[in-house]
Amino acid sequence: MEKSQATEVVRVRGVEAVAARDWLAVERPLEIRARTDGAVRVVSTTMRTPGEDLALVAGFLFAEGVVKQASDLRALESVDEDTVLVELGSEADAALNATKRSFVTSGACGVCGRASLDGLMSAAAPATRGETRRIPATVIHALPAALRQAQTTFAQTGGLHAAGLFTTDGGCLAVHEDVGRHNAVDKLVGTLLLAGQLPAHDRILVVSGRSSFELVQKAIAAGVPLMVAVGAPSSLAVEMARTAGMTLLGFVRDGGFNVYAGAERLNGI
Amino acid sequence: MEKSQATEVVRVRGVEAVAARDWLAVERPLEIRARTDGAVRVVSTTMRTPGEDLALVAGFLFAEGVVKQASDLRALESVDEDTVLVELGSEADAALNATKRSFVTSGACGVCGRASLDGLMSAAAPATRGETRRIPATVIHALPAALRQAQTTFAQTGGLHAAGLFTTDGGCLAVHEDVGRHNAVDKLVGTLLLAGQLPAHDRILVVSGRSSFELVQKAIAAGVPLMVAVGAPSSLAVEMARTAGMTLLGFVRDGGFNVYAGAERLNGI
Repeated sequence: MEKSQATEVVRVRGVEAVAARDWLAVERPLEIRARTDGAVRVVSTTMRTPGEDLALVAGFLFAEGVVKQASDLRALESVDEDTVLVELGSEADAALNATKRSFVTSGACGVCGRASLDGLMSAAAPATRGETRRIPATVIHALPAALRQAQTTFAQTGGLHAAGLFTTDGGCLAVHEDVGRHNAVDKLVGTLLLAGQLPAHDRILVVSGRSSFELVQKAIAAGVPLMVAVGAPSSLAVEMARTAGMTLLGFVRDGGFNVYAGAERLNGI
Repeated sequence: MEKSQATEVVRVRGVEAVAARDWLAVERPLEIRARTDGAVRVVSTTMRTPGEDLALVAGFLFAEGVVKQASDLRALESVDEDTVLVELGSEADAALNATKRSFVTSGACGVCGRASLDGLMSAAAPATRGETRRIPATVIHALPAALRQAQTTFAQTGGLHAAGLFTTDGGCLAVHEDVGRHNAVDKLVGTLLLAGQLPAHDRILVVSGRSSFELVQKAIAAGVPLMVAVGAPSSLAVEMARTAGMTLLGFVRDGGFNVYAGAERLNGI
């Protein structure tokens, strides 16, 4: 399925209006179903940009703590273009049932049902002590442009978030795009999970926007020691990164950045 | 509680690094509890920027279709700085129980559990046929700057989304900020609900970022006929706006914009 679609718009400049064609980032619901002992139930419907759906589901279940390794996924298949079916090992299936929550919220849904801030912090600290060599600032400065260059659908639509995986030399390994920034990270982490490449202790995660608590939590779960955001972090993102020993950089643009946590992984700083 | 907090950072320009003070947008979990017949249960925990918590909860329950009018909220009070307690009328309480869903997703959580795209579209079309006079492009061009000017915490932190309510003359009535863009709209709509000012048929909603399906859905539920976004819309946001008869503008900046739906509400276009 396409990630962008054409639409007719009226383009206004000043008080002049002309008919024009524009490209939209595609947003569609993805239904996730789980099969247990032959019975199938819907566990979630999430809005996403089509593409890498299996990786999205794998990464989402991993970030939620339901799936710990690829072998927990006994089956993972597309039923149709907007439906993915999973069959989990018994332990993961039990974990899925345990995560049932009473309601749904916006903003940072990964935390629903976990009542306290302390609970959040402790649940999300499987210690990101990844050993990276000390990285020079020049490598960091180049990351946002490299991410942007790989964002093919963003260039067309202006409507997608991106998450990129980089080596500590600044080499771009993968970029995933989605209307939801959490999804972009889930797709990236899910791809690593399915390829047996977690934890990603010698990698850099680059995100196109701001860093929230939830994005930092996903990076920590994947073992990523260094997260680079083009935008601002939230207070809880910084607190979480400091607690877990992760390096968190923000406002990485125009030849500068702020180090919010973990300056020891940077060279000469 | 404060919406921003100071933190120590290392500020890097090129290869020079200096210690500096920076301001972070505060992100904290808000626990929503419901009381029924004296029994209290947790219905949701959501990440948000503190402030306008009662409006946030009211707007969230309204957008979810649980609360239809202010009188459905028999009680709405802050228990402590991160907890709000609601007591609902019997009909709303039943609706709350009916919205119980099996899992939690990121991205656009308001849709979890509603299985099909058709279901989404029909659930979200209580017809936004608000009668606005035809609005000149010059009023539209001025809205983003007016929104930005009112974003006091964004100016300090660079880390908050905003939703603003404007008259059809471009007068700014209210601006709400939050780390979550859905929350900013919920705070705005919740404030209107509690003040008995819904539906907002003669108002313009301005959002600082992109427009997703879920933001359009919230605007439609509030009866807002015209939504202005500084960023790009998604495909489903456009589809929803066209279905509901709402005017949706995107990329509203630098003296230009695109009309994705409802050009008939604009003057001379």
